[in-house]
Amino acid sequence: MSSPPRKVQKLAGYVLHYWGGIPGRGEYIRLAFEHAGVPYVDASDPAKLMKTLHSSSPPHFAPPILELPSGKLLSQTGAILNYLAPRLGLAGEKGNLLKGAVEDDGVREEAEFERASVSQLSLTALDLCHEAHDVHHPIAVSLYYEDQKAEALRRAADFRQMRMPKFLGHFEEVLAKNSASHAHLVGKTTTTADLALFHVVDGLLFAFPRRMAALQKTGKYDRVIALKERVAGEGGIKQYIESGRRQKFGMGLFRHYPELDEEDEPAEGQE
Amino acid sequence: MSSPPRKVQKLAGYVLHYWGGIPGRGEYIRLAFEHAGVPYVDASDPAKLMKTLHSSSPPHFAPPILELPSGKLLSQTGAILNYLAPRLGLAGEKGNLLKGAVEDDGVREEAEFERASVSQLSLTALDLCHEAHDVHHPIAVSLYYEDQKAEALRRAADFRQMRMPKFLGHFEEVLAKNSASHAHLVGKTTTTADLALFHVVDGLLFAFPRRMAALQKTGKYDRVIALKERVAGEGGIKQYIESGRRQKFGMGLFRHYPELDEEDEPAEGQE
Repeated sequence: MSSPPRKVQKLAGYVLHYWGGIPGRGEYIRLAFEHAGVPYVDASDPAKLMKTLHSSSPPHFAPPILELPSGKLLSQTGAILNYLAPRLGLAGEKGNLLKGAVEDDGVREEAEFERASVSQLSLTALDLCHEAHDVHHPIAVSLYYEDQKAEALRRAADFRQMRMPKFLGHFEEVLAKNSASHAHLVGKTTTTADLALFHVVDGLLFAFPRRMAALQKTGKYDRVIALKERVAGEGGIKQYIESGRRQKFGMGLFRHYPELDEEDEPAEGQE
Repeated sequence: MSSPPRKVQKLAGYVLHYWGGIPGRGEYIRLAFEHAGVPYVDASDPAKLMKTLHSSSPPHFAPPILELPSGKLLSQTGAILNYLAPRLGLAGEKGNLLKGAVEDDGVREEAEFERASVSQLSLTALDLCHEAHDVHHPIAVSLYYEDQKAEALRRAADFRQMRMPKFLGHFEEVLAKNSASHAHLVGKTTTTADLALFHVVDGLLFAFPRRMAALQKTGKYDRVIALKERVAGEGGIKQYIESGRRQKFGMGLFRHYPELDEEDEPAEGQE
């Protein structure tokens, strides 16, 4: 429980430990720092990463792992985002109050609820990312795609027809019902949920361009697409994209295999 | 944003909206209330549930949905558990401080970190639950098991051989490294992470009895098994089990198909 003295804590910054070469789950954390303009070190040393997994109590199941200024380590994308959100101004106007002490019980309760709603929607976006990954790896992460291609073809058909419209329709409904702003998932400020949805939609456009084009043509997901465009144009994110530092999609969670993006079913899904 | 007057808030309680007849993901929430001895209403009306999904802003992707005393609705198991944890005394000794206002920055930071670690480990237990489900539904939740049995047999082999030892080994390492108590995942009090691991291990014992017996025989997961026994014997949980109210495993997330529990590989896993 020994912590470095306060002064050192303030000088030290955040370090993100993740695999190099792919955006992966680390990207959700990067986007939060980039949007907020808060500096962080992007560490991607495989040897150090394997050590980092086991170096603290509790140890970590998988990256991303966030090293806090105090030296403490936190993993699980959803837990990291929820921890960071009020610190980076990404937990909603009320949720952001939790960056400091909130004495009034009523105000604190509203802040906790807003932060929890942001977490709820972030986790749902991460679920969609997870399912997009399992399309090309339906049997085992320990096997190559080529060794589970037959199963992937079957899973992809269901994902395109059932899951994509269901998830995108859910987020469209969230935006339609948000009376504070139909451009934001929670309240009227950008949250980690917006950033997560931005990245997932971008990933789907990369992995399933034909299916996404057909879904967009229905006009049923206009608000979701607009949110993706809005986030791409916002201060910190715009700079991040233009800097060239944002890693390209490739052989990570979102992969483009043309055979998994066939358009053999009606475009409208039966959600 | 209109809330009912304070008095009503205090009289009203928590309502858990979930499917009836299976423990499902709702069970992680039930266990938290049962351990804490905090009353809640277990609502399982399918017609009302479908309405509840769409009745609030934000709406919800899937149950469980927790209705708060204020009438507000929250979904996503991990977000619900993280919201409830300090309120039910299940966020660790420091994390529990967040039930009230924490003025000291250093204390609040330590409390936030402990609560986040509990969330991290809860989410990892939920990931294991999710993978156990996908073993019998590797292609689509919209299809019957019988229609994806060939794929399930393949996925089950990998799950037994690679994933079960990897996850159980991780939790064993967490317990071994916890110098405050090798019986608890975080600190020395029961948290939502302990409750989630308890339920997942119980589910695995139901779904994969042969594989679990072989893994237990290696002696590599003794602390995980001991945690499961400890939680089962603790106050609120013991009463809950003895009351007969705890629903049996069956055709939910954890399912016992003997053909998915074959023991055709070395018992020791290659983690």
